[in-house]
Amino acid sequence: MKICYLNGPNLNLLGTRQPEIYGKSNLSDIAALIRQRATSRNIEIGFRQSNSEGQLVEWIHEIADDYHYLAINAAAYAHTSIALRDAISGTGIPSIEIHLSNIHAREAFRHQSMIAPVCQGQICGFGASSYLLALEACVMLEAKKANQTTKP
Amino acid sequence: MKICYLNGPNLNLLGTRQPEIYGKSNLSDIAALIRQRATSRNIEIGFRQSNSEGQLVEWIHEIADDYHYLAINAAAYAHTSIALRDAISGTGIPSIEIHLSNIHAREAFRHQSMIAPVCQGQICGFGASSYLLALEACVMLEAKKANQTTKP
Amino acid sequence: MKICYLNGPNLNLLGTRQPEIYGKSNLSDIAALIRQRATSRNIEIGFRQSNSEGQLVEWIHEIADDYHYLAINAAAYAHTSIALRDAISGTGIPSIEIHLSNIHAREAFRHQSMIAPVCQGQICGFGASSYLLALEACVMLEAKKANQTTKP
Amino acid sequence: MKICYLNGPNLNLLGTRQPEIYGKSNLSDIAALIRQRATSRNIEIGFRQSNSEGQLVEWIHEIADDYHYLAINAAAYAHTSIALRDAISGTGIPSIEIHLSNIHAREAFRHQSMIAPVCQGQICGFGASSYLLALEACVMLEAKKANQTTKP
Amino acid sequence: MKICYLNGPNLNLLGTRQPEIYGKSNLSDIAALIRQRATSRNIEIGFRQSNSEGQLVEWIHEIADDYHYLAINAAAYAHTSIALRDAISGTGIPSIEIHLSNIHAREAFRHQSMIAPVCQGQICGFGASSYLLALEACVMLEAKKANQTTKP
Amino acid sequence: MKICYLNGPNLNLLGTRQPEIYGKSNLSDIAALIRQRATSRNIEIGFRQSNSEGQLVEWIHEIADDYHYLAINAAAYAHTSIALRDAISGTGIPSIEIHLSNIHAREAFRHQSMIAPVCQGQICGFGASSYLLALEACVMLEAKKANQTTKP
Amino acid sequence: MKICYLNGPNLNLLGTRQPEIYGKSNLSDIAALIRQRATSRNIEIGFRQSNSEGQLVEWIHEIADDYHYLAINAAAYAHTSIALRDAISGTGIPSIEIHLSNIHAREAFRHQSMIAPVCQGQICGFGASSYLLALEACVMLEAKKANQTTKP
Amino acid sequence: MKICYLNGPNLNLLGTRQPEIYGKSNLSDIAALIRQRATSRNIEIGFRQSNSEGQLVEWIHEIADDYHYLAINAAAYAHTSIALRDAISGTGIPSIEIHLSNIHAREAFRHQSMIAPVCQGQICGFGASSYLLALEACVMLEAKKANQTTKP
Amino acid sequence: MKICYLNGPNLNLLGTRQPEIYGKSNLSDIAALIRQRATSRNIEIGFRQSNSEGQLVEWIHEIADDYHYLAINAAAYAHTSIALRDAISGTGIPSIEIHLSNIHAREAFRHQSMIAPVCQGQICGFGASSYLLALEACVMLEAKKANQTTKP
Amino acid sequence: MKICYLNGPNLNLLGTRQPEIYGKSNLSDIAALIRQRATSRNIEIGFRQSNSEGQLVEWIHEIADDYHYLAINAAAYAHTSIALRDAISGTGIPSIEIHLSNIHAREAFRHQSMIAPVCQGQICGFGASSYLLALEACVMLEAKKANQTTKP
Amino acid sequence: MKICYLNGPNLNLLGTRQPEIYGKSNLSDIAALIRQRATSRNIEIGFRQSNSEGQLVEWIHEIADDYHYLAINAAAYAHTSIALRDAISGTGIPSIEIHLSNIHAREAFRHQSMIAPVCQGQICGFGASSYLLALEACVMLEAKKANQTTKP
Amino acid sequence: MKICYLNGPNLNLLGTRQPEIYGKSNLSDIAALIRQRATSRNIEIGFRQSNSEGQLVEWIHEIADDYHYLAINAAAYAHTSIALRDAISGTGIPSIEIHLSNIHAREAFRHQSMIAPVCQGQICGFGASSYLLALEACVMLEAKKANQTTKP
Repeated sequence: MKICYLNGPNLNLLGTRQPEIYGKSNLSDIAALIRQRATSRNIEIGFRQSNSEGQLVEWIHEIADDYHYLAINAAAYAHTSIALRDAISGTGIPSIEIHLSNIHAREAFRHQSMIAPVCQGQICGFGASSYLLALEACVMLEAKKANQTTKP
Repeated sequence: MKICYLNGPNLNLLGTRQPEIYGKSNLSDIAALIRQRATSRNIEIGFRQSNSEGQLVEWIHEIADDYHYLAINAAAYAHTSIALRDAISGTGIPSIEIHLSNIHAREAFRHQSMIAPVCQGQICGFGASSYLLALEACVMLEAKKANQTTKP
Repeated sequence: MKICYLNGPNLNLLGTRQPEIYGKSNLSDIAALIRQRATSRNIEIGFRQSNSEGQLVEWIHEIADDYHYLAINAAAYAHTSIALRDAISGTGIPSIEIHLSNIHAREAFRHQSMIAPVCQGQICGFGASSYLLALEACVMLEAKKANQTTKP
Repeated sequence: MKICYLNGPNLNLLGTRQPEIYGKSNLSDIAALIRQRATSRNIEIGFRQSNSEGQLVEWIHEIADDYHYLAINAAAYAHTSIALRDAISGTGIPSIEIHLSNIHAREAFRHQSMIAPVCQGQICGFGASSYLLALEACVMLEAKKANQTTKP
Repeated sequence: MKICYLNGPNLNLLGTRQPEIYGKSNLSDIAALIRQRATSRNIEIGFRQSNSEGQLVEWIHEIADDYHYLAINAAAYAHTSIALRDAISGTGIPSIEIHLSNIHAREAFRHQSMIAPVCQGQICGFGASSYLLALEACVMLEAKKANQTTKP
Repeated sequence: MKICYLNGPNLNLLGTRQPEIYGKSNLSDIAALIRQRATSRNIEIGFRQSNSEGQLVEWIHEIADDYHYLAINAAAYAHTSIALRDAISGTGIPSIEIHLSNIHAREAFRHQSMIAPVCQGQICGFGASSYLLALEACVMLEAKKANQTTKP
Repeated sequence: MKICYLNGPNLNLLGTRQPEIYGKSNLSDIAALIRQRATSRNIEIGFRQSNSEGQLVEWIHEIADDYHYLAINAAAYAHTSIALRDAISGTGIPSIEIHLSNIHAREAFRHQSMIAPVCQGQICGFGASSYLLALEACVMLEAKKANQTTKP
Repeated sequence: MKICYLNGPNLNLLGTRQPEIYGKSNLSDIAALIRQRATSRNIEIGFRQSNSEGQLVEWIHEIADDYHYLAINAAAYAHTSIALRDAISGTGIPSIEIHLSNIHAREAFRHQSMIAPVCQGQICGFGASSYLLALEACVMLEAKKANQTTKP
Repeated sequence: MKICYLNGPNLNLLGTRQPEIYGKSNLSDIAALIRQRATSRNIEIGFRQSNSEGQLVEWIHEIADDYHYLAINAAAYAHTSIALRDAISGTGIPSIEIHLSNIHAREAFRHQSMIAPVCQGQICGFGASSYLLALEACVMLEAKKANQTTKP
Repeated sequence: MKICYLNGPNLNLLGTRQPEIYGKSNLSDIAALIRQRATSRNIEIGFRQSNSEGQLVEWIHEIADDYHYLAINAAAYAHTSIALRDAISGTGIPSIEIHLSNIHAREAFRHQSMIAPVCQGQICGFGASSYLLALEACVMLEAKKANQTTKP
Repeated sequence: MKICYLNGPNLNLLGTRQPEIYGKSNLSDIAALIRQRATSRNIEIGFRQSNSEGQLVEWIHEIADDYHYLAINAAAYAHTSIALRDAISGTGIPSIEIHLSNIHAREAFRHQSMIAPVCQGQICGFGASSYLLALEACVMLEAKKANQTTKP
Repeated sequence: MKICYLNGPNLNLLGTRQPEIYGKSNLSDIAALIRQRATSRNIEIGFRQSNSEGQLVEWIHEIADDYHYLAINAAAYAHTSIALRDAISGTGIPSIEIHLSNIHAREAFRHQSMIAPVCQGQICGFGASSYLLALEACVMLEAKKANQTTKP
């Protein structure tokens, strides 16, 4: 199974600033953490970050060809980008929306996600663990799919 | 570690009707599934369901005394109940909001959760797997807490 | 044919207070009136009242097993209860929404019904006659169903 | 007792198109059905249809002089016409709002009725049976009125 | 100077019903009252009523050719009709909006007038006197125009 | 009969600036114009202006004791002042709302008047003639009152 | 005089958690405080708490029969419950709405009270003293009533 | 192929007023222009105008029987008429919405079209050319349909 | 302890008009009533009224220097004045909002108070008794403060 | 004449996925189709696609220098991008907005176009034919311009 | 060049309370600071404060006669006063809106300024420096004006 | 001190088009103007422009490392970009929002700025002078900071 993690704007700042608040883990640390869990289970992990909405759209097009699942932390773009929504629904890649923080406990404009309605589900509020939970979720979705296929 | 799952209105219908849509698993099956995963990790699981908002409020009061984490699928009450919100924030029990379906992909009145702002995070859209992911989330939260405590 | 009438909060007050406004009929009188009409047509009538949203939800679960139709005057809960809506749509019991008063002619918050979209139809504004009209409606629905079934 | 049924725009299409959806009954069939029920009870029935808001307004003026009750399916105009509302409230004719479909289960702009607040009550969602139920409702209203008048 | 009064839906009811509330004057009485005032000042008065929005639109087209001023009580259509607005602004006829009642003291949906922004001004709340005040207003507008024209 | 005209904020600017737009008439000219019409009819005219909401409130208290009618151009305060509304409704002085411009054709925040619902009627859009029309309106209101009083 | 205090959801938590914030008084302490003040004035006090909306509705029905005044801290239900509103207005029991905190200074969804429009008045923001002030308010209301009754 | 053009309220004013703004072409000129283009392609053109909503509704019923396509410039009614929407969707006639002006660049109340959701597409902003483009659009739609039908 | 009562616009009308509705007590009577209660408890009372928002703002500045508590019935200004809000929060004077009527049971624009969020609490709906209850509330606040100070 | 077509995000997916829904034509096919029509008429066609909002903005700057008309299918960005709007209005290039689907018949957030108010007109709902219709529209606009220029 | 600074409600509190938050500078200090900068540049400075909206309106009338620029910190009135807006636009005095705090980062009701649309520009968030920046802005505006005037 | 100016979409058009409206200054001229003022004060100026939101986000990350202040004219992105907001708040760079035009006097969608709440202050409406005023603002902020640091 192949899963690609896509990270939106400003997530490259992670761990480099205000470590007392956001922790010392940067995106690379999170990627390493995920790969560590994934390897033993024979899962291949992709991991990318971009601050550009257009780049993210194009990567979704690619990922839909090369991976089985998309785990996307669209950050700020989650709340405004119809283009990302169209990329996910247009390619049909099974997707999981993740957020480090609990977006429903922050400013009102972060409560709504434009991509949520075209994703399988949403996991938010667990910090870096949100990424690991998405991995577990993909495993479960795959198991369910296998289960349905093998049934007579 | 002790985790209690709380299930809101109409979830007792699960598995008894329209099995072609919602699957054949009922709440007991889900409880068994969770307990199976929990036992090997030495986690004690509570599992309750009520159609009454008042009963759910009272159970949260009890759970806050007897458990370390609350995993709550408040179903319909998630979108309207300030009482459940006050119960969670009033007792201070660390809580995870779960939903079987992706509430953000359904009717507009299900997009908003009154309890989300007082929960640690939200996991929705993965069917019964949402419950298992909440178990994993609790394990991760507990590990992080342990990690912070043992640091010099 | 079996029809159950379900009555929501405060309807037990009916006829016991302000008779000059609401008339002298209480819920028992209405139940008697309905049963009188139903007997001659070989229809069995259930009739219940509760002030508790949770109790109403559970009764809908039961009624869906034991009756052919639900006639529901959810009173105040009609305007706010997603749980009642989920109970009706979850069980799939054919339902008719009734109200004593014309809810569309009262305060703005009574114009919207949360359960209307999952009911067959709505009858409101005719006082106790709304209940009788629901009986007639069930007879007509049953006739239409019979008609469709017997067609080649 | 004399009751006039008034039908708004596009209802003349009924039964002539998409019979697999709306059934094969056209407005004349419904009128016949009503008259059949009415005759045995000594009730005189009027039955008109117009696509013109102005015509409907004028007919309400006439009906208020010639009939005891108005049963009105204003169709599309129900949701926008203040003129029809003023005609009903201005003439004071006791009126019942009817709809073939359950307007509360359709698009949001059909949930609100401009004429509901000036009608006695609303019956919707029962197809042609909505018309018959209005007949029953008039009989009940008349009985109640007679009852009140004959009381000392 | 020629002024045409245009009256919208239900105004033909005036004076024929509920005289204890709306007074005994019907539209003809008001027309007579206006003509009486107008004659001595050498003003020609047109006076028409229709319940049809389309008819009112067409009359505005005619009036724009034959009269100097339009005094319009659009009644219910004032609040919803973009067609009347377009007729007034399309023909460019100088218009005065009148209402018998104070529309700003009634239901919220009567506070807004679609035609107000394309009229010279609005007079409302003075009963039949609103019509007479519109006559005075036309005289004043004409005097001002004459005044401006004769200036060097 | 005694009528007092009350003028709100910035109306003292009238005629002193941008005469090419607003004309050369200042408030004194308008007062003179009104008094000229009023004298021959034996009507006494009061005429005041203030930029202070509090002063206007107090003058309404006085005017209610000393005059039969209030003609009020509250200018900017018309759209925001609940205090002026309470002063008019609290004293019960019969009042006419006037505006030089057609407030319904200007910015959205000028469409609503807080004092309109407690006034007899509204006259707007006729420039200084709005003031004269208010005079005519008072005469008509007085005539109607006299008419009602003298009726047996 | 007999007054019953009714307490809504989560108020049983009072004093048992976060004493540094909410103080050490629990509901029993407050009840004792009230009774202490009431005894010397010959006032009988009822005092109940429930987390169930339905239970609260039923208690209001009872209280209306057995007490002269209802002092209600509906907590979370104050903002959403039409059923409690209907219970108060349906029974006609003179009621005073109380809140420990100043609801108007908290989250927006707590600013509105569904029961306020059917209560005599509202007292909020004074902690346990809100309850005592309600007692004083009842005494004053009773005195005024006595005063009106004894007047010739 | 047969196409009927339907024109809504005030479009009969076209070309007769303010030619410096709207051009000198009236509706007849536009009809001639379309017919000129249509003849050489063997397309039959219908062309009608009415200021009456009811008349337009009835013409749509007729056109659905007699033509293959409807090109409709509903003018003011486009923004408010649910009746026209129901006529189009009820008859199922393939329809193209046209407007002379760019409705999305005008007042906010013209941005929304009630009939757009039941039309094939919308063409606006090109003056009389919008009508010609609708002709081209019908040709293209017809070609696509032919193409699909002839495919094996 | 020193408490100053501040009264907003139109409250000077109290008792001088419509005594059958508002009672015969004017502001002086209320002041006397308060002082009578206050004297025996050794409390000094200030009592002022102004119709001017600016005057009220300045008085709050003074009162913050000279008194321990502010009891403010801002009347109409309560719903619109950010300036009063800033005066209270800027000076930091502990304040109690009072209203004669139950503002939550009146027009929608009176439900919201701009000053409520910066006051200690709100008391409304008890007529002149609202003023007396504010006195009691100050006594209780003072007692609580004394209690906290004297604690070790 | 030179026309440039600009295509926004995800349009590069066209024809490569879900051909049973969107057809087998990809963007290159559409470009070929347009060029085929354009060549015979001596029109030069530009055709570009980008998923990046910034790239689209810059291309509009270039196109305004090199082409006579812009035909823009901004896809998802049409509904949110003020930057594209400013690019079109800032350069002043005459522009036509096109969409494959009827955006007014889809989700509410697609009904509004940020660029519509600065475009000449809008064509939507005709699939690839929307592009061809834009070509025709440019020809007509050019003819009209030529016509105006050559007039004396 | 002559510039007048106008200060709205509560700004007289500046520096006299909570110096740890707002600093020790009061309005006089700020005036001195400005005059110090202005003198060397030969600019005459006016500086006034009032808590009364009416007074501020009148001062704007005066300032428009006596000064070249108005720098206005309307404080709370900035968000609600249409009267101040009309005073600025009515007199046509070139004006700069200033605020000590960043109003866009505070409560939602402070984000909107009623006077902003009639001012040249807005400077907010720089504390007392906002006042100095307004001085610089006036100098720049004056330079630009001079520049335009002296051009051939 | 080092300040970087960041310019958003379409600002590269400045001065190259419509010079009669926007003046002849392009971005380079403005940069030169700023540098001229800055040099004598020993301030280093950065100056960049991009039409890409992603590029702007990345530059903010860089600027936060290399400069003391950010002066940002985000143009169209100011009103929609949560990503820019997160970049500013995430890096913590002290920022000043600038606009050439008075955004509060333009279309409603330009009144709100997503980045304002995370900036120190906002300067808008002074054309190129807005940029110079930002320079002055930085100098003042630096002076204040120095002042606070050197205090004992």
